[in-house]
Amino acid sequence: MRQVAIIGAGSTKFGELWEKSFRDISVEAGLRAIGDAGISGDEIDAIYGGNMSAGRFIEQEHIGALIADYAGLTGLHIPATRVEAACASGALALHLAVLSVASGWYDFVIAAGVEKMTDVDSDIADDLLASSVDREWEAICGATLPSLFAQMARAHMERYHTTSEQMAKVAAKNHANAVHNPYAQFRREISAEAVLNSPLVADPLHMLDCSSIADGAAAVVLCAAEKAKEYTDSPVYVKASAQASDTISLHDRRDITAMDATIFASKKAFRTASLEPSQIDVAEVHDSYTIAEIIAIEDLGFFNKGEGGIATGEGQTEIGGRIPINPSGGLKACGHPLGATGIRQAVEITQQLRGEAGKRQVPNAEVGLTHNIGGTGGTAIVHIFTS
Amino acid sequence: MRQVAIIGAGSTKFGELWEKSFRDISVEAGLRAIGDAGISGDEIDAIYGGNMSAGRFIEQEHIGALIADYAGLTGLHIPATRVEAACASGALALHLAVLSVASGWYDFVIAAGVEKMTDVDSDIADDLLASSVDREWEAICGATLPSLFAQMARAHMERYHTTSEQMAKVAAKNHANAVHNPYAQFRREISAEAVLNSPLVADPLHMLDCSSIADGAAAVVLCAAEKAKEYTDSPVYVKASAQASDTISLHDRRDITAMDATIFASKKAFRTASLEPSQIDVAEVHDSYTIAEIIAIEDLGFFNKGEGGIATGEGQTEIGGRIPINPSGGLKACGHPLGATGIRQAVEITQQLRGEAGKRQVPNAEVGLTHNIGGTGGTAIVHIFTS
Repeated sequence: MRQVAIIGAGSTKFGELWEKSFRDISVEAGLRAIGDAGISGDEIDAIYGGNMSAGRFIEQEHIGALIADYAGLTGLHIPATRVEAACASGALALHLAVLSVASGWYDFVIAAGVEKMTDVDSDIADDLLASSVDREWEAICGATLPSLFAQMARAHMERYHTTSEQMAKVAAKNHANAVHNPYAQFRREISAEAVLNSPLVADPLHMLDCSSIADGAAAVVLCAAEKAKEYTDSPVYVKASAQASDTISLHDRRDITAMDATIFASKKAFRTASLEPSQIDVAEVHDSYTIAEIIAIEDLGFFNKGEGGIATGEGQTEIGGRIPINPSGGLKACGHPLGATGIRQAVEITQQLRGEAGKRQVPNAEVGLTHNIGGTGGTAIVHIFTS
Repeated sequence: MRQVAIIGAGSTKFGELWEKSFRDISVEAGLRAIGDAGISGDEIDAIYGGNMSAGRFIEQEHIGALIADYAGLTGLHIPATRVEAACASGALALHLAVLSVASGWYDFVIAAGVEKMTDVDSDIADDLLASSVDREWEAICGATLPSLFAQMARAHMERYHTTSEQMAKVAAKNHANAVHNPYAQFRREISAEAVLNSPLVADPLHMLDCSSIADGAAAVVLCAAEKAKEYTDSPVYVKASAQASDTISLHDRRDITAMDATIFASKKAFRTASLEPSQIDVAEVHDSYTIAEIIAIEDLGFFNKGEGGIATGEGQTEIGGRIPINPSGGLKACGHPLGATGIRQAVEITQQLRGEAGKRQVPNAEVGLTHNIGGTGGTAIVHIFTS
């Protein structure tokens, strides 16, 4: 199969975008990616869009056709596909877009992610988030996403002596990074102490351990690697795209201090890319809750199992540390518009590998990774990129 | 790319399945397809599932992981992808499954479609159907799916002198076919007169011009054509899989008596398969409303534009006619569980091309076609199959 490259990337600002609709932000992100690629809309062969729950958030399905239409791309009647894997919907769109180009089926495609969450009340949004876990065996019993991640956190603390302070450090680090990200929802530093002093949401997780409800969209333009240099001097190559599943219910898992879907997807990705975790220069991982980042950096092989908390506490995941994690600010500080996140991560890695990340730039970043999960880890998707 | 074959196909009965859940019917269809293929679950490399709106029908997203989990396929952590294109979600799952095998990415995949619609009241279901059209410019003004198809019908009557009797004949023909389909929701004949005497839903469409709300699931197992004979003596080959988009709003279209997405997708499919419409022996087309079948058989090239009504009135689309359309009973008589329909169509064509369709068998059927649309035609997907 052909190698695939990203030749354009763009994002809206993430946050409470009251003045913009779902279709506004979809188009804004798409146009930025197309503009960044210096390509004409007429050259686009297909669109893959990741979205978790527009059906409930804005009472609209048929999202593929909607996006193609409002982006002005229906004149050529190009295929437009919406995919859903809860919070991993964005990376799933990228995964299928990569396949469609790698296979030779299409030459130029857009992978986009979008979610408009703030048009419903927050209690409805909470219930919507719970549709990413097992409605009949978890959510219906009162389990919410934070409470399930709290169980993972408690088990991780019990087995590996991970501390609330180490988890708080994840949030503090990510907020510090986001100060330099103009597209982040929260561009202000918070101390680990502030995290620990924020209200408990689900013990041991505090409010500031949790990512936020937000609106946002992001898009990338992909093409065959051999054509990429016609459009940009700095293509970013997709070296691997791997997806794996696990039980949707947390209580059916082998071990709730790890996510097997992440382990399977990352092993496959590293095998495909012929790379080792130690060769990754920068990673965007799924920190929907602070414990999720700690579990992810272990499951991805950056640290031994049980040592993610210690590594975070020691600053090894800061920019300038051993393996910078979430230089964008992550889900915690960028905000987490569900279907948009997986693509936003790819936008960040694209900017990092181009050396265009400004004050949040990881020095000499040449190999990057993104990690996006759905629900409590029922889906995991890992991409590896090189400059 | 590799040629792809269907080696197994299965479906639940369609209808008001009060005693079965979304996950029950998903698993039932999947197991029937796997059983029909004589393959082990361990050999399956990936799942693609089409579903329109489980988020609103059963308050559950993350459908890919859910199906993989309840089908017992998470032990191998295989990728599970949910796609959505409104009522064309099923065919979209098949389209991506075909790509994943044709490209060599996977060897054995399941394409499934499922919808559980009867767990909500019918007024909610009506509103859910309207999420397949433009919520902000159509549905919010009171337009429902039947009312939009009624506009198409009225325009078709005006321009081509299509009659209510010809439309009623679509329903009568499809019900007559469904008598012999054990999986259809309505296995009873209705006369064209009964259709015309049923209550008006949206003039000129009567209740019996409309397909029904139903529960159902269907699945097919795909593999590379060169391996198919190891599993079955009668593989069905996928000769083309084509997808196209149009504006989501009806009022933005070039012509509301035709669907450009169908025209584009079918032209591409015929080109790929190196076949002409006259070479198709049997077709399952999207008769969500009777006028939709008349428009489809014109747009697919089976009849000249404007002659679909006349051809139907003359019996040319009956089994034994010039081109048998919807021998299964179609959406009208099988029921239309949105995401399931596109796969159910493929199951029917598989049985037809194998010569296993019993009393509804189209004699000497060797080349078949399926046509599945989303909303009022914002998405169209066409597949061509041969024995």
